Amino acid sequence: MFSNRRSVHIEWGDCDAAGIVFYPRYFAMFDASTHYLFEAAGWRKADLRAAFDMVGFPMVDTRAKFLIPSSYGDDIVIETRVAALRNSSFDIEHRVFKADALAIEATETRVWSGPHPQDPKRLKAQKIPDEVVRRLSEARHG
Amino acid sequence: MFSNRRSVHIEWGDCDAAGIVFYPRYFAMFDASTHYLFEAAGWRKADLRAAFDMVGFPMVDTRAKFLIPSSYGDDIVIETRVAALRNSSFDIEHRVFKADALAIEATETRVWSGPHPQDPKRLKAQKIPDEVVRRLSEARHG
Amino acid sequence: MFSNRRSVHIEWGDCDAAGIVFYPRYFAMFDASTHYLFEAAGWRKADLRAAFDMVGFPMVDTRAKFLIPSSYGDDIVIETRVAALRNSSFDIEHRVFKADALAIEATETRVWSGPHPQDPKRLKAQKIPDEVVRRLSEARHG
Amino acid sequence: MFSNRRSVHIEWGDCDAAGIVFYPRYFAMFDASTHYLFEAAGWRKADLRAAFDMVGFPMVDTRAKFLIPSSYGDDIVIETRVAALRNSSFDIEHRVFKADALAIEATETRVWSGPHPQDPKRLKAQKIPDEVVRRLSEARHG
Repeated sequence: MFSNRRSVHIEWGDCDAAGIVFYPRYFAMFDASTHYLFEAAGWRKADLRAAFDMVGFPMVDTRAKFLIPSSYGDDIVIETRVAALRNSSFDIEHRVFKADALAIEATETRVWSGPHPQDPKRLKAQKIPDEVVRRLSEARHG
Repeated sequence: MFSNRRSVHIEWGDCDAAGIVFYPRYFAMFDASTHYLFEAAGWRKADLRAAFDMVGFPMVDTRAKFLIPSSYGDDIVIETRVAALRNSSFDIEHRVFKADALAIEATETRVWSGPHPQDPKRLKAQKIPDEVVRRLSEARHG
Repeated sequence: MFSNRRSVHIEWGDCDAAGIVFYPRYFAMFDASTHYLFEAAGWRKADLRAAFDMVGFPMVDTRAKFLIPSSYGDDIVIETRVAALRNSSFDIEHRVFKADALAIEATETRVWSGPHPQDPKRLKAQKIPDEVVRRLSEARHG
Repeated sequence: MFSNRRSVHIEWGDCDAAGIVFYPRYFAMFDASTHYLFEAAGWRKADLRAAFDMVGFPMVDTRAKFLIPSSYGDDIVIETRVAALRNSSFDIEHRVFKADALAIEATETRVWSGPHPQDPKRLKAQKIPDEVVRRLSEARHG
């Protein structure tokens, strides 16, 4: 499956009064990492919207296990990979490394969504387009 | 001019590794306070959009002076008032109090904006509707 | 087990470009809710630190299932309860309601931690004090 | 005076429901930019603390003028430079560019602070060390 990795420099504003990353900040980093994975596969979200009748891929389930804390000034690497592709939803895994040590393991399930035919304010699950499935299935690094 | 006040309990996640509020968080509180001022005047942003041909009131200039820091568990009071109303822009002042002491003084200028006639993705300054001017001019607390 | 509930007004800054709450913001709300649960039980974190030789209760595992999105101006209720108390860790459950509908289910596991005897920069799991176990075990609402 | 520049990719989570960057996020970027400027000058904050009897440089006054909005997927450049060095405080300027256009102008004043001799929980303004003044005065890019 397709994967991507990026480095993140932990900033002062990422950390809480205990001096370690405030864990909701990791979820913001993971959300960005999923977007960067799609960019590495060839599509910014605007491209996806233009190419397909989709609106987004809202999160429906996410979990993270925090093994090693990080602090201001640390450099971490986030490895993000497609873990499963289903008809209208997909799973992403994020693994955070500090040097060689696994610091966080996270998973997320998102639903490929388009406009709801009866109500433009709501979303409706859609079949993931074949081309998206094809590219995200490649055993390739972004 | 119209004014409103609200209490904010400083949360763990508002604070940085020095144990005091990370100052960008105050700007998020001030943005919310301006929205609460409009709610107190009778309009949520959705109401404004429905009643007038407006989209929002983006920030064009803001300044804050930080006099006394606050920490997790502190209760602060944010006093927000309309400071000036012009044709298509307005000024808001926020004053933060810890007990009776003035802790922060902030000002902001926003532009009343509607859709741009030539480009739906851009905004265009609009005349602030008379009814909005009238209500925000009242010497009244929300 | 002890429980607490609070209302949260979804603010403009909580929402993303799709107009719904950016999900990492929910984790910040849940972190605050766990702190409010302890406050309702009688202890702010500073009180815990003063009364016991503890530093904090870092997150080690958290999961959230998002069933119904919320948007700017919505009022949600977060119900937070102690789900399990072990020797040095505990589980918290958060349930978010929009009107009567369950919108989010989240769980978290935290470790009661004190200073590491060999390294003041690190933390070490500690036995949860009896008084904390006693109060958090009460079938009582904060 | 010393200056530094860096690129920032606007992420999905930086943007609000109007599809543009939620302005408090810019202040978080500017705070990080000031830290990166010190890193480029040779010191992470931990280095400053170790080398000098200082704790931090809290913000006392900041202002930003927003000229052009940015959206998810945009790449901006933040140019950060030392604007003034006084006995115990200093000014920083940030200019944000989108392509060649000036998008934001911001200034900030921070106070070089050490532990308060009478109260370890408070900070006290200190003379900025000569070596810091010397390096930040150089007409050099980080």
